[in-house]
Amino acid sequence: MDIQNLRDEIDQLDIQLVELLAKRQKVTTAVGAYKKQVGKPIYDPIREAELIAKRRELAASLDVSPDLIEDLLRRIMRESYQSQHNAYRCLNPDAKVLVVGGEGALGRRFVDMFQRSGYAVDIFDKNDWHRAEELVAGKQLILLSVPITLTEQVIERLPELPENCVLADVTSLKFSPLQAMLNKHSGPVVGLHPMFGPDVPNFVKQVVVVCHGRDNQQYDWLLEQIKLWGAVIQVDDAQQHDKSMQLIQAMRHFTTYVYGKFLSKQNADLNQLLRLSSPIYRLELAMTGRLFAQNAELYADIIYGASKGQELANAFLHELQDAISDLEQNNKQEFKVKFAEVADWFGEKSSEFLLDSRSMLQSAHDARDLSHHE
Amino acid sequence: MDIQNLRDEIDQLDIQLVELLAKRQKVTTAVGAYKKQVGKPIYDPIREAELIAKRRELAASLDVSPDLIEDLLRRIMRESYQSQHNAYRCLNPDAKVLVVGGEGALGRRFVDMFQRSGYAVDIFDKNDWHRAEELVAGKQLILLSVPITLTEQVIERLPELPENCVLADVTSLKFSPLQAMLNKHSGPVVGLHPMFGPDVPNFVKQVVVVCHGRDNQQYDWLLEQIKLWGAVIQVDDAQQHDKSMQLIQAMRHFTTYVYGKFLSKQNADLNQLLRLSSPIYRLELAMTGRLFAQNAELYADIIYGASKGQELANAFLHELQDAISDLEQNNKQEFKVKFAEVADWFGEKSSEFLLDSRSMLQSAHDARDLSHHE
Repeated sequence: MDIQNLRDEIDQLDIQLVELLAKRQKVTTAVGAYKKQVGKPIYDPIREAELIAKRRELAASLDVSPDLIEDLLRRIMRESYQSQHNAYRCLNPDAKVLVVGGEGALGRRFVDMFQRSGYAVDIFDKNDWHRAEELVAGKQLILLSVPITLTEQVIERLPELPENCVLADVTSLKFSPLQAMLNKHSGPVVGLHPMFGPDVPNFVKQVVVVCHGRDNQQYDWLLEQIKLWGAVIQVDDAQQHDKSMQLIQAMRHFTTYVYGKFLSKQNADLNQLLRLSSPIYRLELAMTGRLFAQNAELYADIIYGASKGQELANAFLHELQDAISDLEQNNKQEFKVKFAEVADWFGEKSSEFLLDSRSMLQSAHDARDLSHHE
Repeated sequence: MDIQNLRDEIDQLDIQLVELLAKRQKVTTAVGAYKKQVGKPIYDPIREAELIAKRRELAASLDVSPDLIEDLLRRIMRESYQSQHNAYRCLNPDAKVLVVGGEGALGRRFVDMFQRSGYAVDIFDKNDWHRAEELVAGKQLILLSVPITLTEQVIERLPELPENCVLADVTSLKFSPLQAMLNKHSGPVVGLHPMFGPDVPNFVKQVVVVCHGRDNQQYDWLLEQIKLWGAVIQVDDAQQHDKSMQLIQAMRHFTTYVYGKFLSKQNADLNQLLRLSSPIYRLELAMTGRLFAQNAELYADIIYGASKGQELANAFLHELQDAISDLEQNNKQEFKVKFAEVADWFGEKSSEFLLDSRSMLQSAHDARDLSHHE
């Protein structure tokens, strides 16, 4: 056995792999062009699931791990969605669109998506109030993408809209903006919450929450257009949606902020923590630290804007004091009883979470490059 | 353009991909056999980095994304490390090994690694005290893998060890166990903390923290053997290590426990939260929920065993009360000032964390299968 020969063989196979990817990319680009032409969504979950199932079977028959081929194909498909993300069929070619706040990060994203789909788009930003009536005239869709603290006052300040114009917003809370839009406008109204940030590469598999307002058949084209971009529509009640968002968004950010504050006060040696850390603790640290790379204003708005923010924060404080009291009494038994109650509440989801997080941690682990270690 | 022809072409390319993986696997199995024979670690960071750099270059020249080929190769390498993980060269063939607690999950893992490397391994578990002297006799390494609450009493209760026998432990705290081992035994002593759980597929790229005790040249073979398994050795001071572990392990688990308790008391609709959630909130929920799929006893030991646990928990409580007070006074300005201070403390790490978490979230996103949606 000669190690150099074996390594050369691996290199040859890896070169073939790159060439194969180049060929595949040419074909998927053609598929993208076809889909644009006939107006099919670039993400086809059924075709994707079938394709993966067949290759898993083949892999098993050749003694290759089916999970390996599935992971590779999913990663390759991510790239092919992105390469197909250049133009979309226009489902309502006569509709003129106005994006209010179209110069913000999320607003720009929507302007871009509408333009890639062949819509005529105008932008209305904060310096455009003097020509508001002119911008609003003749529009079939007015989409609001403004900071949450301004949404309602911007809605009230808008001039009267064309009778059948669709009024929509993309604010992360839904109840109050939806009420404000319904009060403002007597035509079709819909609340949208894109469950993703402006930095996603495309809309494939992203969730957009829809809270119906009025005359939903009149904005059906808009929802279909969003589906064509690859997103998934999830209809929800505005109040229920806001309640959930307080828990998974405002409260989570709040406790993460407190944990980061705590870590900084302890003045731990961050580099040493990272050197020691296993993937799970690196991820825990990353999930805390990532918050502080972002916009303080945005998080202040989310945390301070939650209607039950104080009540929930105090409920969390209560749980913390209770846990500290068990700790101070060295009452391990009580800890285990309460742990079991929470485990019951999570039910079988906790095991699913454990599996999900393991596969994610494994990807993070794969990406470790220790060639500069020591 | 005929969509069916295009899809057939993609299928043919994907079949070639599976066949290519099968060939590559045969070659890497041969590499593994060679490495075992000559005693080289299965993980070679330099070769890995070079190989990836070359394929990235080729990809760029063929208009294929370099990140795509890197992600694919890293995932393929994970599989090849696993397929090479069957036997290792034995660096100290005369050494007889005793694993105390060798029937526990982590203990079994070490028994298995030593056996795969050709060592004679005995197991000493809780029912073996009557034959303790017999088991200890003639051993060159005694490795303790027992619950943290028992480590010190087990060390004390051991019979006298052979003079040059290496005494080592794998407890997650290091200062007290190391002191106990140094008191017990006058020969070579070393504290180890494997920064991973017993469920890792192999030791490749995993970190093992080493706290030197006494006569380190006498256990050098042990550290080299661990490197041969693919792990990375990180030398640390026992007290410094324990301080870090309290912060990133005990306190993080404690606050996650409190957050889970809080969520369960709010009785949120978990399925609805998950339906709405973007990848980042799904991950946040998963990081909380995964705790409760695991052993309450283990977490009780970690949280209640931290020597400064109460002090740190109260420091966290203090930060929470401070943040709630800002919230109740609607003092956004103060929030932003404190946010900026924490951001300063994280420094450039927070941006790195944001990038890391984005690439991990993207993998989680790839894995979404929405073929059963609606």
